Amino acid sequence: MAELLKGAPAAKAMTEALRAEADELRAHGVMPCLALLRVGEKEADLAYERGALRRCEQVGIAVQRVVLPADAPQSTLLAELSALSANPGIHGILPLRPLPAHFDDAAVCAAIAPAKDVEGVSPVSLASVYAGVPGTGFPTCTAEACLALLHHYRIPLRGKRALVIGRSLVIGRPVSLLLLSADATVSIAHTKTQDLPALCHEADILIVATGQEGLIGAEHVRPGHVVVDVGIHAAADGTLSGDVRFAEVEPIVDAITPVPGGVGAMTTAVLAAHVIAAAKHTVL
Amino acid sequence: MAELLKGAPAAKAMTEALRAEADELRAHGVMPCLALLRVGEKEADLAYERGALRRCEQVGIAVQRVVLPADAPQSTLLAELSALSANPGIHGILPLRPLPAHFDDAAVCAAIAPAKDVEGVSPVSLASVYAGVPGTGFPTCTAEACLALLHHYRIPLRGKRALVIGRSLVIGRPVSLLLLSADATVSIAHTKTQDLPALCHEADILIVATGQEGLIGAEHVRPGHVVVDVGIHAAADGTLSGDVRFAEVEPIVDAITPVPGGVGAMTTAVLAAHVIAAAKHTVL
Repeated sequence: MAELLKGAPAAKAMTEALRAEADELRAHGVMPCLALLRVGEKEADLAYERGALRRCEQVGIAVQRVVLPADAPQSTLLAELSALSANPGIHGILPLRPLPAHFDDAAVCAAIAPAKDVEGVSPVSLASVYAGVPGTGFPTCTAEACLALLHHYRIPLRGKRALVIGRSLVIGRPVSLLLLSADATVSIAHTKTQDLPALCHEADILIVATGQEGLIGAEHVRPGHVVVDVGIHAAADGTLSGDVRFAEVEPIVDAITPVPGGVGAMTTAVLAAHVIAAAKHTVL
Repeated sequence: MAELLKGAPAAKAMTEALRAEADELRAHGVMPCLALLRVGEKEADLAYERGALRRCEQVGIAVQRVVLPADAPQSTLLAELSALSANPGIHGILPLRPLPAHFDDAAVCAAIAPAKDVEGVSPVSLASVYAGVPGTGFPTCTAEACLALLHHYRIPLRGKRALVIGRSLVIGRPVSLLLLSADATVSIAHTKTQDLPALCHEADILIVATGQEGLIGAEHVRPGHVVVDVGIHAAADGTLSGDVRFAEVEPIVDAITPVPGGVGAMTTAVLAAHVIAAAKHTVL
């Protein structure tokens, strides 16, 4: 029986700590505020927006929503980002992505003021995560949620071997660099990796972010493993599952995140933490 | 007897190819030009400058030298960088670093126009290497020299296991990401790594960039290994050696870079390649 690394208790603890920080900011006359930009009405965006609004309400962060039609031109979105970047009442800016295909994603990311880039997508934020310089830019919320979960459950990282499976800019790369900054010995596997099961067995901690449903099973794990499953996949009947075959893996390993209810449940708490940190930065 | 991965033949081949490209640029009316900024008269800077000048002459790149006194104020250096960034006749800008301690290194790096940042130190360049998006920013010359050397000697990378020992922003991090982009399975070790010899034995390729003279010896290697030694250390008598105990390691492994004459001999060729690429970009 593995320890279940549930997101909710970690998110709750984080939310409570953040609420105290938000109270203190308001006592200093600062109302922490997140600008949330949505283009169109995609269900995934609406679901994330609902979660973010709920979390911000719990913490005491105001949310300014900006909604553009799905066919809005690039110039309109850039103008909104520019205005929000210049607005001293806004501390964090989050455009829900992926954007419709006619947008130039790189230009959109670069248009967010680095100090307000709470999802860590601007070049300055990327450079900061890459350089491992804390305090100058935020990592992506999901990548940091993995670390926050491990931290909440007191999983030691220093000197441990962590294997990150997946090399995307949203998870694989930032989580690798965060683990490196936490003094783990980090390996990065991907579709061209040979003998993935053997590689997994060498590691102490597996961070699975492949985007492939059920890729990781009994053959990849051993007793002693801590498994963080970042994948989320919806079946036709609405059932959610991850990149890990939970029923197979859970009886073998020491600890594992459930899906749903693991990393995903932490993401909006990390987002709120970034908004609070950005707001605090304005009064320092 | 290991194959010696000497830098000079690789640098020579690269220089010849670049000379042809420089000729073509001049035929299009573009004289490729590198601006080389030196602050003070440090011997290490002067040595690198001599090497860079020689390589640029071989390729057909003009070099504009800017020399400031060691006690020049930050504002003077920033003004020079700003003028060079705006000058259409300059294609690459290289401030020799580390700068004297009174300079704000991050501000200096950020003041280089990203398109001319041939040593890959500006945030946009860092973000580009981190994101693995080729063509938008250069990696550091030494990191790319490691890859160029492996490429010259036709060492396959795809699906191979590469261990990078060292996590600096100059070598460890960029070389890890370049190896990842080349489809290697990459691990990153550092001072907090446990049982480094065992980790080395799992890998096919070792990139050693620890800054510690002679750290890697017979206990770390096995037949089959390809060893790239990025370290360079000068003894009191002027003898140069690397992070690898060459005499011990060379009889065991399949291939190894000598020090001196390995990676170091490639660095200015990569610098020249970046200047040519930046100059070509201006006529595209």
